[in-house]
Amino acid sequence: MDTARLDLAALAVSGVRPGIADIPLENISTLAKGRLGDPSVIPLWFGEGDVPAPAFIGEAMIRAVRDGHVFYTHQNGIPELRAALADYHTRLGATPITSDRITVTTSGMHALMMTVLMTCGAGDNIVIVDPVWPNMGGTARVAGVEVRQARMDLTQGGWTLDLGKVAAAMDDKTRLVFFASPGNPTGAMIPMETQVELLAMCRARGVWLVADEVYHRMVFGRDAGPTLLDHADPEDRLIVTHSFSKSWAMTGWRIGWMVHPPSLGPTLAMITQYSNSGVATFIQHAGVAAVTEGEWFVEKMRAYCETGVGIACDALEALPRVRMGPRPRAGMYAFFEVDGMPDARAACVEILQKTNVGIAPGFFFGPGSESFFRICVCRSADSLSEAMGRLMTVFS
Amino acid sequence: MDTARLDLAALAVSGVRPGIADIPLENISTLAKGRLGDPSVIPLWFGEGDVPAPAFIGEAMIRAVRDGHVFYTHQNGIPELRAALADYHTRLGATPITSDRITVTTSGMHALMMTVLMTCGAGDNIVIVDPVWPNMGGTARVAGVEVRQARMDLTQGGWTLDLGKVAAAMDDKTRLVFFASPGNPTGAMIPMETQVELLAMCRARGVWLVADEVYHRMVFGRDAGPTLLDHADPEDRLIVTHSFSKSWAMTGWRIGWMVHPPSLGPTLAMITQYSNSGVATFIQHAGVAAVTEGEWFVEKMRAYCETGVGIACDALEALPRVRMGPRPRAGMYAFFEVDGMPDARAACVEILQKTNVGIAPGFFFGPGSESFFRICVCRSADSLSEAMGRLMTVFS
Repeated sequence: MDTARLDLAALAVSGVRPGIADIPLENISTLAKGRLGDPSVIPLWFGEGDVPAPAFIGEAMIRAVRDGHVFYTHQNGIPELRAALADYHTRLGATPITSDRITVTTSGMHALMMTVLMTCGAGDNIVIVDPVWPNMGGTARVAGVEVRQARMDLTQGGWTLDLGKVAAAMDDKTRLVFFASPGNPTGAMIPMETQVELLAMCRARGVWLVADEVYHRMVFGRDAGPTLLDHADPEDRLIVTHSFSKSWAMTGWRIGWMVHPPSLGPTLAMITQYSNSGVATFIQHAGVAAVTEGEWFVEKMRAYCETGVGIACDALEALPRVRMGPRPRAGMYAFFEVDGMPDARAACVEILQKTNVGIAPGFFFGPGSESFFRICVCRSADSLSEAMGRLMTVFS
Repeated sequence: MDTARLDLAALAVSGVRPGIADIPLENISTLAKGRLGDPSVIPLWFGEGDVPAPAFIGEAMIRAVRDGHVFYTHQNGIPELRAALADYHTRLGATPITSDRITVTTSGMHALMMTVLMTCGAGDNIVIVDPVWPNMGGTARVAGVEVRQARMDLTQGGWTLDLGKVAAAMDDKTRLVFFASPGNPTGAMIPMETQVELLAMCRARGVWLVADEVYHRMVFGRDAGPTLLDHADPEDRLIVTHSFSKSWAMTGWRIGWMVHPPSLGPTLAMITQYSNSGVATFIQHAGVAAVTEGEWFVEKMRAYCETGVGIACDALEALPRVRMGPRPRAGMYAFFEVDGMPDARAACVEILQKTNVGIAPGFFFGPGSESFFRICVCRSADSLSEAMGRLMTVFS
């Protein structure tokens, strides 16, 4: 395992700028790489289920290809998709969202990269509320921006954000605060009054607030989570990022979107032009189908993840060595520690070898989470139960 | 027209980092925006023809979707496509290229963005040989990197690069030199001995050389252009960027690739992860089909563009007011000046209104080219002849 780490380090090349060489090459993909697609492995590594997008989404894309939607396109997204997404937000939230606030992106990930490139320069920093999906920190480092941490605390009531930690991490070079609610890996929802207070803090300092609401529809027992969009003005320095990956099981399709101040549209078009010049039109047509005809599937995915959380937590809660907050009420993960396994990274490599179950170590999700494990529960009951059975043998 | 420029400026928002606000929002897309898809317009604006990718490429993608290739994928590209591209280069060039030197990207554009982010930081600069496609300069500015110019000269023999200009533009903060051969908009090929000398200059200074070889297959009268890959060591600081957009008419599919030192693979995987996490797998399967079964189509596209250059140049050379170098022997453009029309930008707006032909003004391609016009000739003989007929009325 330390060998694996050293191998990656040995590959570091000369000629890259200094900051790039400092970014760890290791991530969930490198961990999984050797076993990607290996049928003997039950992959609970990624934020990805075992369900493909429903056929009607693929068929919409196929129609678009056959209809010749295969040329250069609008930088902010095709008008049909921007309008469909504006309607979608307006329907789900309490505030009308206009289509000039929507920019379609090559994944939720790319929305974050564009946001960092747009708002932060060298010498600037961003504050990340974690434990969280590592990619916002990664893209900031790639852009040469310092990353600071405000770690949520695991309390009796679950993962809790202390805004004092955010304030303490900020200085006059802070350009952006990032959080995800519902959270990945925690499944935690930051109470809306806390989010509103955070927005007020950012407003007072002229700092951008970036809310990752990718799991907005994965809130158990309700149609959608609360959204900060309902508590902000259109021209607030607020960007809400979304993805088609989770709600419509479109991980491999690489399409997401962002909700932004209307005035940012032309700037985001420009950055899109100089990033990848936009999302393939036929994939955008798949997105239109997903948003306008896919509500039944979103409900199905939500139920699927709720069942998965139940199966995983039933198993984990029966183990005296496992420590975990209250059951998540959102998302697609369980995030927990195991007594006697302080180095989850080493344990994950061993667990993969012993049980052929792929799970993710906590250190990917921020400093302080080294002893945690994340498992993705978006899997059939049979496969997930089988995986939990195998994990019991090592966590008992 | 000045109104259009002012409107865009008025939209500049607060909160973006200072360098971003300085990047012009205007590009060919903004110029075309109001008339995109308007059937009355003959669009010679973009580097895009009127031919869609051949059906077998779309069918390969459709098979991949139906076969379930819709999940997260390999960061550097699927092994099949990396191997197919390595074979492709090995077949066309004089030097074997291994698949660990191939990274598949979300467009040739994104290969450039990743290259800049990987090699350049704040305070660094890059030198761009122009007139050239504006997007390398754009992505550098988005990344906060200074852009310097080494302009080719239009001589009796055509567009010529004076390496002294490159040397003069470089200083100890220069991290990268960029050129395109065959060129866009010029169609010019930089002689291989000049390219080799440029590589030696870069080697001596530890500077990266980025060769855009997107038009490598669009060289008239031969199967492929010469490539600098045949004159470099694998670990030279050389990156060659490619796209499926031109040779296989896949502009709207957003897929390209780069050939890089093998040691860069893990770093590029990491930057891909934090950019957009990779290219949709099913599009990569379309790429495999294009590379392995598409030679007949590449030949067709080359002939189509050669015919187009003939039609456009026959028309333009008959006009006494038009000044242009020798006929391009590569690419898909004609690039020329017209006496009495020093402000090509103003003229393009007027020409669009008067003739419903969309053409691109030279200032997009670098300082000093303000009086030039670029037209894309990758169009059916009928449509291109019709467009040239309309243009004769304003250029006569």
